[in-house]
Amino acid sequence: MSTNTIISEKELFIKMVMSNWDLQISRMNSLLAKLSDEDLSSPTAPGRNTGVYLLGHLAAVSDGMFTILGLGEKLNPAMDELFVRKPEDSGLQKPSIAELKEYWNKVNTLLSEKMSQVAPEEWFNRHTAISEEDFAKEPHRNKLNIVINRTSHISYHLGQLVYLVKK
Amino acid sequence: MSTNTIISEKELFIKMVMSNWDLQISRMNSLLAKLSDEDLSSPTAPGRNTGVYLLGHLAAVSDGMFTILGLGEKLNPAMDELFVRKPEDSGLQKPSIAELKEYWNKVNTLLSEKMSQVAPEEWFNRHTAISEEDFAKEPHRNKLNIVINRTSHISYHLGQLVYLVKK
Repeated sequence: MSTNTIISEKELFIKMVMSNWDLQISRMNSLLAKLSDEDLSSPTAPGRNTGVYLLGHLAAVSDGMFTILGLGEKLNPAMDELFVRKPEDSGLQKPSIAELKEYWNKVNTLLSEKMSQVAPEEWFNRHTAISEEDFAKEPHRNKLNIVINRTSHISYHLGQLVYLVKK
Repeated sequence: MSTNTIISEKELFIKMVMSNWDLQISRMNSLLAKLSDEDLSSPTAPGRNTGVYLLGHLAAVSDGMFTILGLGEKLNPAMDELFVRKPEDSGLQKPSIAELKEYWNKVNTLLSEKMSQVAPEEWFNRHTAISEEDFAKEPHRNKLNIVINRTSHISYHLGQLVYLVKK
């Protein structure tokens, strides 16, 4: 963005939220670049989720943002069952690490592209997971709020995934 | 806030950020209520920080927000050395768990009180850790952005602290 561009309050606020989202995504990508497939297959702590499960979980939650933000359909709806609704020990067949990394990258690249095309006013509208009635009472629960919330969600699991880096 | 109150765009942004901050603080408090002193004294994963260190770390980082946001002096500047600048194995004498919990509560209660008194316009001003020159180029790096960033920081360590809850 040029330093000479005059941006609206809304645009400034959207930029604040998006720069924090982008920061967490880039931290996740830097971490993934450091971890071998063996690292990713290990539990983040004894008896806890593996890196593979958390990667699938984060990708599936990002994928869920298309529908909640009204940006289109999920790229892979089946992932929700494997990595959100069911725990790691579900016994269900899971994709390979290479497939999960590809899924993560595809989802976030497309999400980032679609989010950048949302009109500033639109970010302050209701998302699809809140009723019109509730939104009338709580207008802060808008689409942009979903991004703030999901940014914290990535951070939460990044704190766990970082334990896969050997000391 | 009454449902009939008309709030400005700025106030709405601030409410979005603050409600996500409050959510992480309340998650941390719920987690602390569940953990015994013995749990808190354990490493969050083998060879990683204990709950005690992370509690001190989060409290000291919140304490640092008074100065960065221009809200006053730190309540306990010595904590920064123990829990931010130095790692857990610094060999430095640390406060008791009871003292750290009290510190955490005091810092967050006062911070919440002072943040609620900040005028809406003021949140979009420069914080003390960015130069005037840089802020002119990057106006999204304002005081409110610090709160967004620190919200993610709490989430990151919450993801680790939750490993202290026995399965």
